[in-house]
Amino acid sequence: MYSYPLVVKAIWFDESLNELCWINTTKLPHEEEVLCSSDPARVAKAIRDMEIRGAPAIGVAAALVVGAYALKIAGRSLEEFTALINNAIHILLKTRPTAYNLFYALTKMQRSLREALSRTSDTYTLAKKLVETALEIYREDVEANLKIGEYGAELVPEEATILTHCNAGALATSAYGTALAVIRIAWYKGKKIRVIATETRPLLQGARLTVYELVKEGIPLTLITDNSVGLLMRKGKIDLVVVGADRITRDGYVVNKIGTYMIALAAHKHKIPFYVAAPTSTIDIEHTIDQVIIEERDPAEVKYVMGKLITLEQVNVYNYAFDITDPELVTSIITELGIIRPPYNETIPVNIARKLTT
Amino acid sequence: MYSYPLVVKAIWFDESLNELCWINTTKLPHEEEVLCSSDPARVAKAIRDMEIRGAPAIGVAAALVVGAYALKIAGRSLEEFTALINNAIHILLKTRPTAYNLFYALTKMQRSLREALSRTSDTYTLAKKLVETALEIYREDVEANLKIGEYGAELVPEEATILTHCNAGALATSAYGTALAVIRIAWYKGKKIRVIATETRPLLQGARLTVYELVKEGIPLTLITDNSVGLLMRKGKIDLVVVGADRITRDGYVVNKIGTYMIALAAHKHKIPFYVAAPTSTIDIEHTIDQVIIEERDPAEVKYVMGKLITLEQVNVYNYAFDITDPELVTSIITELGIIRPPYNETIPVNIARKLTT
Repeated sequence: MYSYPLVVKAIWFDESLNELCWINTTKLPHEEEVLCSSDPARVAKAIRDMEIRGAPAIGVAAALVVGAYALKIAGRSLEEFTALINNAIHILLKTRPTAYNLFYALTKMQRSLREALSRTSDTYTLAKKLVETALEIYREDVEANLKIGEYGAELVPEEATILTHCNAGALATSAYGTALAVIRIAWYKGKKIRVIATETRPLLQGARLTVYELVKEGIPLTLITDNSVGLLMRKGKIDLVVVGADRITRDGYVVNKIGTYMIALAAHKHKIPFYVAAPTSTIDIEHTIDQVIIEERDPAEVKYVMGKLITLEQVNVYNYAFDITDPELVTSIITELGIIRPPYNETIPVNIARKLTT
Repeated sequence: MYSYPLVVKAIWFDESLNELCWINTTKLPHEEEVLCSSDPARVAKAIRDMEIRGAPAIGVAAALVVGAYALKIAGRSLEEFTALINNAIHILLKTRPTAYNLFYALTKMQRSLREALSRTSDTYTLAKKLVETALEIYREDVEANLKIGEYGAELVPEEATILTHCNAGALATSAYGTALAVIRIAWYKGKKIRVIATETRPLLQGARLTVYELVKEGIPLTLITDNSVGLLMRKGKIDLVVVGADRITRDGYVVNKIGTYMIALAAHKHKIPFYVAAPTSTIDIEHTIDQVIIEERDPAEVKYVMGKLITLEQVNVYNYAFDITDPELVTSIITELGIIRPPYNETIPVNIARKLTT
């Protein structure tokens, strides 16, 4: 299943425990804490609190815990079983509003349950089916990581310096990451790349998670504050940008970690390629960008850094978790189906239709 | 001398001690520590360590400590006196390479000494003359703050929401600030403005200093991460931007706190006015932008926040303190002489020539 070394794993299904296991990313890089659970409410809390984060990872984790929970409650009445599963899905769907993958994975689980119910009323059979579907979603993500990395690596010149934002890595997905899969596979293929990672305020996923992953890989890396990107581009220190996505609309708007948009604007100004790497499970062909909810999180995330108050406690804060990048700023979108190029309002629907019919 | 209330003072000359006094801005907002000294080496350290920071403040502080030091060493031989003063100026000039005001103020002190030497060889008279010149530089900055505020307030619409970056406030100047003078005087004139302050990584001058000043003033304020500016502009939450400057070249390039350039790019994209507020002592009519040194500071400033390690200790860091904003992104420059508008390569030299001849 893994064609390249996997130095860190964010989430997996433990088949001896029948539980979802995850690294608590809030404690990285200083502590590597592994937690396991089959309780959807516990995993919902882990997603809300960003122990598990990254659009693909939260989708897959949600599916896996529904499977784990189904095994735990198998044997109850059919009515109770389906009510509990539907409630679990409902709780998990409400954890975070922006990432599309959560909706994608849980909708698949719902459909799987519905289909299985048309054939059986045995809750053990239903539970096994749900685990199977969850593991399919998991493997689909692993496979997508690999394909994204392979396709994306082709776009990376020899000795390129690549800027990435936030963490779209192993710690955001089931395997190699999305943006970091591109970087990893370019590196494994022998390209002498260097990486510049933004620290990514407020929760510092770049400084904590991307640095952790790339130091493990031995890929040369420089950390910067988010606001340094413009100067570094002006100085010619960045050859290309690759970031992940939390949701991509059918016309090519990219919703991703707050700060992505300003990076895209600077890349555009300096004619630096700006790539978005994401599985098609991130693509929302139903909603327009105006219908997407940009999550607002606790002001304390801005006011405190690693537990230290950096300002006056009483100050007001805006803490939007994501921003929106216009299609015309995106050079291309790297998916497991290949590279999608503009005009996105034509190419995205064609690719999704192709996926649905194969 | 002060036409509006002055709620906080960064630097002043204490005439009973004959010393420069300053608030140690590195300890704000949690602690208000006042330090005083007539030792140029101590003040050089205060400037390097950013106890005293902000382009106008470091220029004025350097001049004031040269005056204080001159009073202290008056009575020594003329040769020793002039050698010590020249050495003090030399040490202070080397503290930080980017802010032009430091060069401006210390060049004035050098010229003052030279002129006085042509008339007297009494070191007490020379020292008094140096203090006088330093106090002139100080008062010139207070006056400039006021004029910048008055001119700038005219540009602020009623009920505007104003974005500012870093701290170009009282804590960066001798009185009301530059960008914050515009905000303060618009507020004192009764305009119902609101402010959005970027936290300004790595040293958090926005979160620590701008928040401290504006909370004292009672001006409504929201704190954001540096990377949120693009989204807020897209959402229509920002009406205008006003920032300070560390150096402005004769053709209108603005060197200011890292992150300014990305804000200017976003403002340009969203057709939001982007104003730079600075005294003409910030304008360098001698050098081209390529000759300006962008200071690189200790990587620890990025790796640690308030003493907490936010990443892996061994990671490489780029820590440029400033960036460069192109003239075409600057709507106008607010100076004590009035509003300077494009084309800057014509209007800046004309204004500086006018200043030199009055």
